[in-house]
Amino acid sequence: MNEIRQNKATKQWVIYSTARGARPHDFTRCPAERDAVPDHDPKCPFCAGNEAMLGPVIAETASGGGAWLTRIVANKYPSLETEAAKTRQSRGIYLAMEGYGRCEVIIESPHHNRDIGVMSLPEVRAVVDTYHERYVTLMRVHENMLVLIFRNHGERAGTSLMHPHSQLIVTGIVPSLVREREECAQRHFDQWGRCVYCEIVEFERSDRTRVVFENASFLAFVPFAAEVPFEVWIVPKRHEADFGTVTDAERADLAEAMRDVLGRLRVKLGDPDYNYVINTSSQYESGEPHVHWYLQIRPRLVTAAGFELGTGISINPSLPEEDAAFLNRADSGPESPAPPGGRLGGL
Amino acid sequence: MNEIRQNKATKQWVIYSTARGARPHDFTRCPAERDAVPDHDPKCPFCAGNEAMLGPVIAETASGGGAWLTRIVANKYPSLETEAAKTRQSRGIYLAMEGYGRCEVIIESPHHNRDIGVMSLPEVRAVVDTYHERYVTLMRVHENMLVLIFRNHGERAGTSLMHPHSQLIVTGIVPSLVREREECAQRHFDQWGRCVYCEIVEFERSDRTRVVFENASFLAFVPFAAEVPFEVWIVPKRHEADFGTVTDAERADLAEAMRDVLGRLRVKLGDPDYNYVINTSSQYESGEPHVHWYLQIRPRLVTAAGFELGTGISINPSLPEEDAAFLNRADSGPESPAPPGGRLGGL
Repeated sequence: MNEIRQNKATKQWVIYSTARGARPHDFTRCPAERDAVPDHDPKCPFCAGNEAMLGPVIAETASGGGAWLTRIVANKYPSLETEAAKTRQSRGIYLAMEGYGRCEVIIESPHHNRDIGVMSLPEVRAVVDTYHERYVTLMRVHENMLVLIFRNHGERAGTSLMHPHSQLIVTGIVPSLVREREECAQRHFDQWGRCVYCEIVEFERSDRTRVVFENASFLAFVPFAAEVPFEVWIVPKRHEADFGTVTDAERADLAEAMRDVLGRLRVKLGDPDYNYVINTSSQYESGEPHVHWYLQIRPRLVTAAGFELGTGISINPSLPEEDAAFLNRADSGPESPAPPGGRLGGL
Repeated sequence: MNEIRQNKATKQWVIYSTARGARPHDFTRCPAERDAVPDHDPKCPFCAGNEAMLGPVIAETASGGGAWLTRIVANKYPSLETEAAKTRQSRGIYLAMEGYGRCEVIIESPHHNRDIGVMSLPEVRAVVDTYHERYVTLMRVHENMLVLIFRNHGERAGTSLMHPHSQLIVTGIVPSLVREREECAQRHFDQWGRCVYCEIVEFERSDRTRVVFENASFLAFVPFAAEVPFEVWIVPKRHEADFGTVTDAERADLAEAMRDVLGRLRVKLGDPDYNYVINTSSQYESGEPHVHWYLQIRPRLVTAAGFELGTGISINPSLPEEDAAFLNRADSGPESPAPPGGRLGGL
């Protein structure tokens, strides 16, 4: 029997199609092709020592002895630039504007092959702190409507650069998708007097069938209406509209959650391609009681086709509860090392 | 200089990023890998003679001598089924329902390698008539909120089956994306008293910089805010909310437009993977003065990454005017035969 589920926060529907009999382990691939990644690649612009290929360095986290842990650099091929005008212009019957914004790259490690799932906890913490510091700085500019931090891992996720890195894009407009998410959350708040994301976190914590990790500050779970197999949300338990307001202790807990979940996906599914995005409030909505930031991980294991493009409804061949159970199972998956971090999920 | 453009009908923004210097011909690929497709594949369930591998045939268009031109069959792995309940159910704090709907496959030719761009005009006409007839039949069932006809061509577009086919999916809910498109068009109508799509067609017809094909009933153009390189819309000039209301003469003209545009994409870009969708009104909106059906073709030449997932804003490396000029250029592209159909576009 197929099932259709609604994302409580956005009201988007997702179809669960189990007719093809796909099971979580069907998405596991042999990670052999990535095992060969070296620690240093002389052709990689992000590797230590290759600074000549790199754009200007905006900020750097120092490690001991003159080395660096993380770096923020300008994107060499920016889609948006701060010199552009922020006003909208008519073009015949249409509306257009110059590309105001910012495109930066966050290099997460000097090591070419040290991906987040296999980093040490202090290394992941440095990545989180780098995200946070830059986010806070850029949100102080009131023309910056949205500061989006995201990560593309692997070719199916839109990058061919193996070196661990994320991106940060600032837009001068509030994207429709972000505005819709905020309006939807506001309608829920107006009707029920509470944040819909807080309600979801509370329900998932007690229900537990979709939980994959929990610590003092965060709950990680496969959402009830996951759009793709093994989608995971890492959500702060405390109500926070804006990623900028996370505390020091929360940043430590976020690093732990990211390392555990990404490590588990890597081990269990054989280093899948994925995107993650920090969904956070736009400039005008930070501090509101109805929106709630969270980190959304979407493995790229299936291809969206005409139906998805025409309706916005995803067809997901894998049930969220089964995905969570698979991630919580004790065996170690196709890679030999045990997954990093504790397994607090699914208790 | 980059540019941001707004889709006038949906208010979605698209970023044009020319910094990487991609030009239309950069998307052209060598079609050699597909030249080897045989006329008949003994393992293909859609090929004539292989009916044993096929689900039940729902309808068939006869050609002469007992042969068939097109066929509609039930999808062997349906995501939605008519036996399911249509009522919504609570699942804890969430909403879910059984998968009511219908999944059908339209086999467009008995020939394994006769894709639309290389079909004869009567063959494409048979495909259009098959779409139309089935659409009208299924829209008579008032529980069917949307009848979506779409085509996935190639692996990047979500299919590994080469045999020319489309799909038809009926949903018992109005997808959010469709509802938003309709609401957006209604707001435009309430403000300006006319259909936004009629306005766009009229502007593109006079502007001509993005037009790629025109006949008595249809205008085909790269939209001003195309989400992906070489996106093309084929729009009826007459106001029609619902694909079901096309006349006999319009079906002939639609076949001509599809054959020309898909043939041109095939010749100029080397048989790219693509999806197309017939965007049409939902059950309640058919006959309205503000919505307008159209066929939307989206080649799958670029990969959506974290930014697109987090904002809904596409980054398109190719400008619509340049895409249109490239499709209208006199040379024949990587394939040797001249493209089928006339070249009325770009006059």
